[in-house]
Amino acid sequence: MTAGPAPLALSMGEPAGVGPEIIARAWTALRAEGPVFAVIGDAALMRAQGQPVESILSAADAPAVFGRAIPVLDTPLPAPVTPGRPEAANAGAVADWIEQAVNLALSGEASGVVTAPIAKAPLYAAGFRFPGHTEFIAELTADTPFIGTRGPVMMLTARDLRACLVTIHAPLAEVPELVTAERVCRTARVVHEAMKRDFGIAAPRLALAALNPHAGEGGSIGLEEIAVLIPAAAALRAEGIAITDPRPADTLFHDEARATYDAVLCLYHDQALIPVKTLDFWGGVNTTLGLPVIRTSPDHGTGFDIAGKGVARADSLIAAVQLAGEMAAARAK
Amino acid sequence: MTAGPAPLALSMGEPAGVGPEIIARAWTALRAEGPVFAVIGDAALMRAQGQPVESILSAADAPAVFGRAIPVLDTPLPAPVTPGRPEAANAGAVADWIEQAVNLALSGEASGVVTAPIAKAPLYAAGFRFPGHTEFIAELTADTPFIGTRGPVMMLTARDLRACLVTIHAPLAEVPELVTAERVCRTARVVHEAMKRDFGIAAPRLALAALNPHAGEGGSIGLEEIAVLIPAAAALRAEGIAITDPRPADTLFHDEARATYDAVLCLYHDQALIPVKTLDFWGGVNTTLGLPVIRTSPDHGTGFDIAGKGVARADSLIAAVQLAGEMAAARAK
Repeated sequence: MTAGPAPLALSMGEPAGVGPEIIARAWTALRAEGPVFAVIGDAALMRAQGQPVESILSAADAPAVFGRAIPVLDTPLPAPVTPGRPEAANAGAVADWIEQAVNLALSGEASGVVTAPIAKAPLYAAGFRFPGHTEFIAELTADTPFIGTRGPVMMLTARDLRACLVTIHAPLAEVPELVTAERVCRTARVVHEAMKRDFGIAAPRLALAALNPHAGEGGSIGLEEIAVLIPAAAALRAEGIAITDPRPADTLFHDEARATYDAVLCLYHDQALIPVKTLDFWGGVNTTLGLPVIRTSPDHGTGFDIAGKGVARADSLIAAVQLAGEMAAARAK
Repeated sequence: MTAGPAPLALSMGEPAGVGPEIIARAWTALRAEGPVFAVIGDAALMRAQGQPVESILSAADAPAVFGRAIPVLDTPLPAPVTPGRPEAANAGAVADWIEQAVNLALSGEASGVVTAPIAKAPLYAAGFRFPGHTEFIAELTADTPFIGTRGPVMMLTARDLRACLVTIHAPLAEVPELVTAERVCRTARVVHEAMKRDFGIAAPRLALAALNPHAGEGGSIGLEEIAVLIPAAAALRAEGIAITDPRPADTLFHDEARATYDAVLCLYHDQALIPVKTLDFWGGVNTTLGLPVIRTSPDHGTGFDIAGKGVARADSLIAAVQLAGEMAAARAK
């Protein structure tokens, strides 16, 4: 292909949420410089956001259109959209858009997938059976060959922080038993390989967060560091992955600390999300590592309370598109 | 007393740690403006830090001395001090210094206590039986009358963040069972009263952090919010304490969020310490709320690895002295 990299496929997400308006805002910010994306969604709804829109028939048409209009691969919704009011009749289309975007990436017509936020309740009502995008996309790509350790691993980024999760949406009470050496090692392998393949880091440096205060203080505040985390880190180093012993989680996230690693493994949701959102509440990006397709997403929800009011910020979606573009370029090398 | 407020009593802490040198540095920073402090410790060791030192016989002498020298209420150590090498023979004196400082505050000769870091291992070897300063000072003041809900509650501050802990040095696996409605309510009462009495906030606004990701997402990611935290918050509001329902912990610590409350109740160590140290790794302060005496401390340890090398930063101790001075002024009103 002489026309430059394939565009990103951007699934429109929940149509009654902030997705359509932040996509329009992201296009305004990115139209000149890119990365180019093709929206997979409803062209009429996209047009209602006040920016020029052109329906395209193939993702390959997106680069030529992107400078003057938002290119949309149009799959119209069956039911009308009221901002803030999700409509169960539209849930099937929302899931189809994600699947189309993934298929474009699998075929090479798209260089990666960016997903606008979805709402779980209407999807569940329509029979969707995945906890979220991450698991759905893992399922859609499960039969595709992949060289390396398969994820999905969820990574959240903010500024120079890359925080990768060993457990994700588990109740806190279940976290200690879920943090096994096997899970830590598998996560570390996925992250290590992704840093090399998708981020162009030749010798990735990983940090490991501890579970307990003061990293357990030698076993006096919890035994998981001694029983699970220190042995897991040693095993990983023995296979050539540069990862630290578990470090007290409160010492990992200030400026000087972040400079000591390329990615940090966090053991539970808030251990990663608190520093990510403290550092950059509006610009965080959720990336799925270890799948045959590149996938990023804003790290916020559908924003039903503000949808359609013109106040939703596109910072996170813009950062997600930019990061997917960078990852696609690194993976293409 | 016409000579202004009583000085703060600053216990020297572990003599082989960074305490002596950061006290000298803090004095240099504060000598002109105050708050005035009297060091409770070894005058010869203090003199070895390169700043002028004067032994005083009474805390009341400190204000006259403070502009020209570090005032020290001298209790010499029995054994020589080697930076980085704690000496068990000195542990008894370290505990005595804390007790002297507390007694000065109880008698009114000092307006509050600031404690330099201590090392637990030598203290334990000498028979000290408290997990740390906080519990020791609670014990020393247990027989002193106190109007209000008695703590101790540990509060960490950084910039405009005041994070108060419901549990402190518990293994993460024990946190869910320790977070009872009774503990949450007692902590909230102590914090509410301290905000009024020690911080001059007439109508304190408290935020409550959730335990589970997304605050449990309506019970689908853990039940503690529904079973414990929401009822506790309702009970607190019924008694006139303005506290929110449990909020997702990752949405509480960015600039806009911090502006919505005066103090936040965090349920476990790293939930508070991660944002505190991400926001300000060097200047955090540890304050004990709900005791008859005011007490603050730097939020770092003894720094044996850097002690005596002249590189330890005094930011946190300086902030601790300043905060104790502000609290003493508010409590005196």
